[in-house]
Amino acid sequence: MGGHIRQDAAQGALWIRTADSGFRQDTEERRKERKNCVKNELNTDNRSRLRIIPLGGLEQIGMNITAFEYEDSIVVVDCGLAFPADDMLGIDLVIPDVTYLKDNFEKVKGFVITHGHEDHIGALPYILKDMNVPVYATRLTMGIIENKLTEHDLMDTTKRHIVKFGQTVSLGKFRVEFIKTNHSIVDAAALAIYSPAGVVVHTGDFKVDYTPVFGDSIDLARFAELGRQGVLALMPDSTNAERPGFSPSERTLSHTFETIFEEHPRNRIIVATFASNVDRVQQVINTAGKYGRKVVVEGHSMVNIIETAAKLNCLNVPDNTLIDVDMLKSYPDEKTVIITTGSQGESMAALSRMASGIHKKISIGPGDTIVFSSNPIPGNEKAVTKVVNELLQKGAEVITQDAHVSGHACQEELKLIYSLVKPKYVIPAHGEYKHLVAQKKIALNLGVPKENIFILQSGDVIELDEKSAKVTGKVPAGGILVDGLGVGDVGNVVLRDRQRLAEDGILIVVLALDSANLTVVSGPDIVSRGFVYVRESESLIDEACDIVDVSVNKCLEKGITDWGRLKGSIRDDLSDFIWDKTNRRPMILPIIMEV
Amino acid sequence: MGGHIRQDAAQGALWIRTADSGFRQDTEERRKERKNCVKNELNTDNRSRLRIIPLGGLEQIGMNITAFEYEDSIVVVDCGLAFPADDMLGIDLVIPDVTYLKDNFEKVKGFVITHGHEDHIGALPYILKDMNVPVYATRLTMGIIENKLTEHDLMDTTKRHIVKFGQTVSLGKFRVEFIKTNHSIVDAAALAIYSPAGVVVHTGDFKVDYTPVFGDSIDLARFAELGRQGVLALMPDSTNAERPGFSPSERTLSHTFETIFEEHPRNRIIVATFASNVDRVQQVINTAGKYGRKVVVEGHSMVNIIETAAKLNCLNVPDNTLIDVDMLKSYPDEKTVIITTGSQGESMAALSRMASGIHKKISIGPGDTIVFSSNPIPGNEKAVTKVVNELLQKGAEVITQDAHVSGHACQEELKLIYSLVKPKYVIPAHGEYKHLVAQKKIALNLGVPKENIFILQSGDVIELDEKSAKVTGKVPAGGILVDGLGVGDVGNVVLRDRQRLAEDGILIVVLALDSANLTVVSGPDIVSRGFVYVRESESLIDEACDIVDVSVNKCLEKGITDWGRLKGSIRDDLSDFIWDKTNRRPMILPIIMEV
Repeated sequence: MGGHIRQDAAQGALWIRTADSGFRQDTEERRKERKNCVKNELNTDNRSRLRIIPLGGLEQIGMNITAFEYEDSIVVVDCGLAFPADDMLGIDLVIPDVTYLKDNFEKVKGFVITHGHEDHIGALPYILKDMNVPVYATRLTMGIIENKLTEHDLMDTTKRHIVKFGQTVSLGKFRVEFIKTNHSIVDAAALAIYSPAGVVVHTGDFKVDYTPVFGDSIDLARFAELGRQGVLALMPDSTNAERPGFSPSERTLSHTFETIFEEHPRNRIIVATFASNVDRVQQVINTAGKYGRKVVVEGHSMVNIIETAAKLNCLNVPDNTLIDVDMLKSYPDEKTVIITTGSQGESMAALSRMASGIHKKISIGPGDTIVFSSNPIPGNEKAVTKVVNELLQKGAEVITQDAHVSGHACQEELKLIYSLVKPKYVIPAHGEYKHLVAQKKIALNLGVPKENIFILQSGDVIELDEKSAKVTGKVPAGGILVDGLGVGDVGNVVLRDRQRLAEDGILIVVLALDSANLTVVSGPDIVSRGFVYVRESESLIDEACDIVDVSVNKCLEKGITDWGRLKGSIRDDLSDFIWDKTNRRPMILPIIMEV
Repeated sequence: MGGHIRQDAAQGALWIRTADSGFRQDTEERRKERKNCVKNELNTDNRSRLRIIPLGGLEQIGMNITAFEYEDSIVVVDCGLAFPADDMLGIDLVIPDVTYLKDNFEKVKGFVITHGHEDHIGALPYILKDMNVPVYATRLTMGIIENKLTEHDLMDTTKRHIVKFGQTVSLGKFRVEFIKTNHSIVDAAALAIYSPAGVVVHTGDFKVDYTPVFGDSIDLARFAELGRQGVLALMPDSTNAERPGFSPSERTLSHTFETIFEEHPRNRIIVATFASNVDRVQQVINTAGKYGRKVVVEGHSMVNIIETAAKLNCLNVPDNTLIDVDMLKSYPDEKTVIITTGSQGESMAALSRMASGIHKKISIGPGDTIVFSSNPIPGNEKAVTKVVNELLQKGAEVITQDAHVSGHACQEELKLIYSLVKPKYVIPAHGEYKHLVAQKKIALNLGVPKENIFILQSGDVIELDEKSAKVTGKVPAGGILVDGLGVGDVGNVVLRDRQRLAEDGILIVVLALDSANLTVVSGPDIVSRGFVYVRESESLIDEACDIVDVSVNKCLEKGITDWGRLKGSIRDDLSDFIWDKTNRRPMILPIIMEV
């Protein structure tokens, strides 16, 4: 199957979308026609320009989404979520602000998705609820998207188009070609985005893997062809732009796994990796087969993706290999392998539950060898270490080194792409600011003029054509916080309150007032949460009540009937007292009931 | 000065504490006498055994403290703090539970401190407030301790003894010898703890540096001598036990700094490192001197330690090198270097304030080159990256690679110590569980029998002598949380509340009841914080009030006068409603006022 696609690409067979949303093969003639058309447009001076508007993905890892606009057409590349930053207390996930797309809804021709990772597809269901737009993606990517759409009850309303590598889809004034790349998930694509103003190559997340586990190597020939024809701009993956050298092939790990299996003939082997890394799972299954072990896949998200991948023939599972977790007890340890989620120390994932002894079906002991086939994502180091320590304490052996390769291109791979694509402009994509700066350095080193490299911020509008490129404006952009069912109902005010509550807790002062006679009829009572252990601090709370008493009476004696002023007085006096006694600043919330 | 100490150690000149707490030189005669005494004791069978009781430092990095007990004598090695874990919301620091020491106060002869890092000295002021015990430490270590004691107003009451390398202090049945080592702070010591049951070598935090920047190399000869004489147990630093090879010498960085200065002749150079790394500061000062630049030290804690180190001649600052931060504007950028705190991305540290543009005296721009002379401590990666991104956004150049060496021994250095000390028993010290396991592996590889290696937990009591070693009991141990002025008044209940408040905020339901007539006279009112932005969720709050109304009336109609049951009903009904509407679980706090 992979070979077939490859052949297509090598022959340069392109596909374009017809009016009825079907695809038909591009012809040599059509291609010439198109080339002339682009040339002609380049010769006119008052033509429109291409606008590229990243709506996320440039301030953080995650939330990748970029709009391409030409006259009446907008194409959106990816629609990812971000995981909340440390200070976003209680937030589940963050999705991009797509006000600009909503305001220009009639222009939006479709979402074009590069691959099936959360930071590229995770916001789709949230956004599609508000704006029903067709989605274009390769086979496995679409399979994973469909899982999400099913969960959000959006399958019936969402138009979906599966695209093959080498195919091109027409979307208004744009055509978008899907180009085979390699990444830590199968079926990742780079995109060639054709507009009358020129071609933009967006690499998506990619690496160069000459010996991938599934399917073909990245279609370098196509990148070269595009480069020869002339590329207006390159938007390269910047995640690993700080790293010198070349990302090792996914296949190098087969030797690693064989060595581990060879050296642990008596142990149960547990491999933790990313739920979506189908190739990694494939390699573990292969090694398990070779050593006559049965395989259990554990963890909700991994089971989902593996089932989807197997159904789509992206994963080759020999018969009688996979067994259900309940069957584990029917086999001796040395005949089993468990592949599991939780490699990032996520507290609710399967491995973490095993490590802390609360997994219902798998308990860890001295007979287990656990392999972390992953590196901790920055910010997860402590969580991963916690799990490692717990596993070791249960007597298991833990392997955390050398069982992972990155899915992102390092400096030498990026240089290769620049050399093939030869872009006029470079817009570093996908990364924090430091990664974008590292990408810029690479481009500079390869001779791209400084003024042709644009480090953008989310919301920036860059307009470009063969003659010039310039940031010309700004559209709304940023993260919308999702907390439970609420989308956007938690903002800065709520987050600030949560931070304050988290830091020192809350003191609630309640009193009932007879507003006619200006007398206190009940209270003041003080209730606290998250401040001190009240049973051991009774005298402190008693003193605090006295302070409030004085504060209230002082106000009432002055005849103050503005409850705002009364509350302010209570807050100030109590806050000073608490700070003196404890050096803490709990939130103080006076509540006055009128009777 | 270093040479002088070295000579002492080489001659094996030991010092013992006399009754009046002064020191006098040990003689060859005394040493023989002592050796015989130990020998004699080893020959009797019903002699007492040495007890080693770690009270912290074995579950986490930090909070190092270990009690050594023999009959009526206890010596305590180190008294460090830990920084709060991620789930300890609002906590400032964590100190060890020393109940066991307090219960045996009359036995405690002194605190013996290995070096001046917070995780080895930080809890001293808190513990000394409760139990006044003399403190023994080397010169700079004591200097830093004295800064803390001054802050806590404990200088007048605390007996302090400065010990030289090669000196031995007598503490009840124990004698403790200070042995020169190398570490990322000057004046670090290993300890030989002599008891009638045998000698324990505690390495403290150490590395082997053959070319240290200040003072002598680690006194390997003394480790060898002790090994020849027979060492009962070794307690080795496990921080880097997972790392193969050898920690590079601190001095290798001098070349690094020179290269950076050479390559940035026109830039202001800003070096961020740990406040206590006096050697690192020395190297920057040396390089600055060579390139004719003035040096500013910025950051409260660094200024403190540098002043102390300079006063004690642990730092060599040539005249006219240091300038005040206010003088910066009098020199061109290329003539200045700033050494600063904040290398871990600590939000209040000087570098973070520069990066976010709120530092009062230093603003960052394209003319600055910032060198992170540090590696992020696990857990700090994201905070460091945030600062790096901010600095880059201001146009500065940032160097984060290859400008740091670790202060902890790697595997080859640890092997060297084992080979010299030849301990009978090994008790891995200083590290998380995974580090202790790595240390155990090294010991096993070097031929220490499995049954002679003890991975302990804080609170474990191990009893040992030449014949056997065994964990015989458990004493109270753990972390006491410090929040503001409160020591131990925030426990699990308060932390759980803070976590809940942080996650989804709080809903407070207030109503005033006429308890005689069982009628609601005011309310119910709902006040929320950290839950939703109320102005945009008025209808939700209104509905919630209705739910409470129904719930209350239902109870009152049934004649329920137990406010506990009434509150329970409100909590249950409201909680279900809120979950249905939002998938959130804010804390719900009903408050009933009787009028």
